[in-house]
Amino acid sequence: MASKKEEMDAKGITTSKNDDISDWYEQVCLKSEIVEFGVAKGTMVIRPRGYYIWEQITDYFNKNINEKRGVENAYFPLFIPESFFNREAEHAEGFSPEVAWIDKKNTGDGERLAIRPTSETIMYDSFSGWIRSYKDLPLKINQWCNIVRWETKATKLFLRSREFLWQEGHCVYESEEECDRETKDLVLDYERLGKELLALPLIVGQKSEKEKFAGAKKTYSIEAFMPDGKALQAGTTHDLGQSFAKAFKISYIGQDEKKHLPYQNSWGISTRLIGGMIMTHSDDKGLVLPPKVAKNKAVIIPLLFKGKEEKVLAAARDLEKKLKSLNVIVDDRAEHKPGYKFSEWEMKGIPVRIEIGPRDVENGEVIIVKRNDSEKVSVKMDDVKSEIGKMFEKMHKEMYEKAAKMLEDNIVEVKSWEEFVKVIKERKIVKTVWCAETACEENIKEKTGGATSRCIPFDLKRISGKCPCCGKDAKVEIYFSKSY
Amino acid sequence: MASKKEEMDAKGITTSKNDDISDWYEQVCLKSEIVEFGVAKGTMVIRPRGYYIWEQITDYFNKNINEKRGVENAYFPLFIPESFFNREAEHAEGFSPEVAWIDKKNTGDGERLAIRPTSETIMYDSFSGWIRSYKDLPLKINQWCNIVRWETKATKLFLRSREFLWQEGHCVYESEEECDRETKDLVLDYERLGKELLALPLIVGQKSEKEKFAGAKKTYSIEAFMPDGKALQAGTTHDLGQSFAKAFKISYIGQDEKKHLPYQNSWGISTRLIGGMIMTHSDDKGLVLPPKVAKNKAVIIPLLFKGKEEKVLAAARDLEKKLKSLNVIVDDRAEHKPGYKFSEWEMKGIPVRIEIGPRDVENGEVIIVKRNDSEKVSVKMDDVKSEIGKMFEKMHKEMYEKAAKMLEDNIVEVKSWEEFVKVIKERKIVKTVWCAETACEENIKEKTGGATSRCIPFDLKRISGKCPCCGKDAKVEIYFSKSY
Repeated sequence: MASKKEEMDAKGITTSKNDDISDWYEQVCLKSEIVEFGVAKGTMVIRPRGYYIWEQITDYFNKNINEKRGVENAYFPLFIPESFFNREAEHAEGFSPEVAWIDKKNTGDGERLAIRPTSETIMYDSFSGWIRSYKDLPLKINQWCNIVRWETKATKLFLRSREFLWQEGHCVYESEEECDRETKDLVLDYERLGKELLALPLIVGQKSEKEKFAGAKKTYSIEAFMPDGKALQAGTTHDLGQSFAKAFKISYIGQDEKKHLPYQNSWGISTRLIGGMIMTHSDDKGLVLPPKVAKNKAVIIPLLFKGKEEKVLAAARDLEKKLKSLNVIVDDRAEHKPGYKFSEWEMKGIPVRIEIGPRDVENGEVIIVKRNDSEKVSVKMDDVKSEIGKMFEKMHKEMYEKAAKMLEDNIVEVKSWEEFVKVIKERKIVKTVWCAETACEENIKEKTGGATSRCIPFDLKRISGKCPCCGKDAKVEIYFSKSY
Repeated sequence: MASKKEEMDAKGITTSKNDDISDWYEQVCLKSEIVEFGVAKGTMVIRPRGYYIWEQITDYFNKNINEKRGVENAYFPLFIPESFFNREAEHAEGFSPEVAWIDKKNTGDGERLAIRPTSETIMYDSFSGWIRSYKDLPLKINQWCNIVRWETKATKLFLRSREFLWQEGHCVYESEEECDRETKDLVLDYERLGKELLALPLIVGQKSEKEKFAGAKKTYSIEAFMPDGKALQAGTTHDLGQSFAKAFKISYIGQDEKKHLPYQNSWGISTRLIGGMIMTHSDDKGLVLPPKVAKNKAVIIPLLFKGKEEKVLAAARDLEKKLKSLNVIVDDRAEHKPGYKFSEWEMKGIPVRIEIGPRDVENGEVIIVKRNDSEKVSVKMDDVKSEIGKMFEKMHKEMYEKAAKMLEDNIVEVKSWEEFVKVIKERKIVKTVWCAETACEENIKEKTGGATSRCIPFDLKRISGKCPCCGKDAKVEIYFSKSY
């Protein structure tokens, strides 16, 4: 066992992001000690520095939904009876291939129990008891929990796993307008979370008929674009209309004293976002993290020269105390050279490295190196804390802008079917006008070897022209690409 | 559906705590809207005001373990392969009756997968890869997650359910002393959480050989005593010694450059604590909550007299703004009389009720009523916020002291077997010297119709005398009672 770990430690990332992004990504995830494979196929162990990222997402988003939107957190059971599951027909059909079930040994002759792949059905059964009058609306409930989807395709750390963590929000409204407005607002909240917390540029829009959620009227999504030209659906909000209300007998007495069906939405983001963030920002040296989600935000490396160790170590310890709130690491291992340490902490994604040598101590200075672009600056000892604060803001901005440029450079507006095919072949993203017909989308998928529609942007220009695939009148503007 | 809810709303708690504690408890849990039954047998839906209590426990305890003890949060898979489970023999035997399994439909010919009833085995498999040298120790990992134990006995909201939420901490140490010390310190942390957050007095001590955790060397516990004289084990810490390290091949190279087995502990508290707290503090009017864990900490009830509604409502709205941080509710429903509203919010456990009538508005005063003892005070409008702060402190103290007295009054020190049997029959707690032999404990359980040892207190006096059951020399002082 130690030999495997030693081998891992001995070398950095051995594949380039450009050469084999899949192998590179797995190495970055594992060697940065963010996550590791669970022993049950398709599962993962989220290690402390990885789980810290999820805690920051949780805190950020709880503030958003609890304080700004009046959403309340709750917890619903892991187990869903099969009959519940089947009440909304489209929903059941959409999820049935990937549901995990509890063994008969446990349930005996009782009803078969599913492990939640999403909680619409079990929540809405409760909602039907909680809602009586218009005064009970809007009802806004959210839960943070684990979800199980028995993926049969190859799994990938964070991006596709049999168990993952997520939040699922479920709201019930009196009016269709209110429901649709908040469903849209929430996907914009997700976009903001991506930008402000994860430095992740996202495209926001509405899914096509074919790609929408099983049982929904409309689905909105945030889509991240990975360096290999594949899109990653990183969060969705669903306007459910009244179909679940019908299936689960949710109704309310309105101000008019008549019975009405309410409107509902559901919305979720998951640990998948972490994978998208890692793949976007990281490089051939390893993990690159936005400072806000890095558990250890700085590492101090004392440069130890014979006879002068004491003075340097004392200065490092002194600085450690000042930077306590950054959860700083002091790497004073005598058995490793500075270069080895630099590489190790770069691989692990620590946002800044602080070097202190004997000369620096004499001058009352340190060298600080930014992880994202290796920029080096000399900083007065007394200014270290405030300087790092400024550097973090700068890093976040630089990382966002670099990713935004990459995204922009990879979107190609096409006018013809030839261009469409060529752009997909080049592993880029097609932007095009489109007929919006499901048959055409299926045709595109087949002819391009797997390209699917991503989303229809909200900021619609006036559409004109013909669908590049089928030649019918275009109705929407949309993105197509391969996807995770 | 509405009719069932209307019936619930129409009346308060219909059973007295003294007459039928079991029915009373269920009514308090359901009618306060803290929790409801899940549709799958033995599961529960934790509603927003119930989940808020759990969030406060999470926040309080995370601060304790992360900041004070250097524990890091992580997340491990829900699924545990059967073979893992069986590596530590005592552990497997202890848990096997209550494990839920994934259906063969999912796993096919692969290994059988359990749903975690606790995560020692899956975590320690990872730990064996993470730990190489003494520099990796202590390793202190915690996770907040859901747990499944397929209870075959009758389930009870919060107290015994097939799925519950908990935290499980797992630490690895170089020295036995460090391990034992922190295992003890952690159970004292639990005791403090009970006292400071939940106003819950707890008895702390070591479990007997028979009652300790499957696979542990020693188990420490916090025990709450319920009004019906039954004990509730509300949290445990386990000194695991080296047995799991052996079974999961966890070893480290020490400073002496030799290979060593480390020492381990594990420790957990769960949503069960919420049940213990509810049962301890609540009364025949319904839920009583310590203010710190009440989501809505106050309710304002405007007393509406014809022609003077406007002035009173304006004052209520004004006060609402001032008390925003208390998540205050204004109950301005015109269709209900004040008395109805008082009862409803008492049932739901809102810590203080603020009454405002036309006369109060004129005098610039309000009446505030404390939920725990119905004490009424008149408070100047300008002082409301600071007065409520003081009342909350007082309430917490009063609730703790009342519960502590109840606990004290129910512990009876016995000298003979006749007294022992009589005290158990009277549904009280036996305090006694004891021989500490498992055969004697089994004998006691049989002869008393189910009394088991609770724990051996830490603050041991010198023990002398004979075991009241078997007559052998006493070795410890201990508590016996029936239990949940």
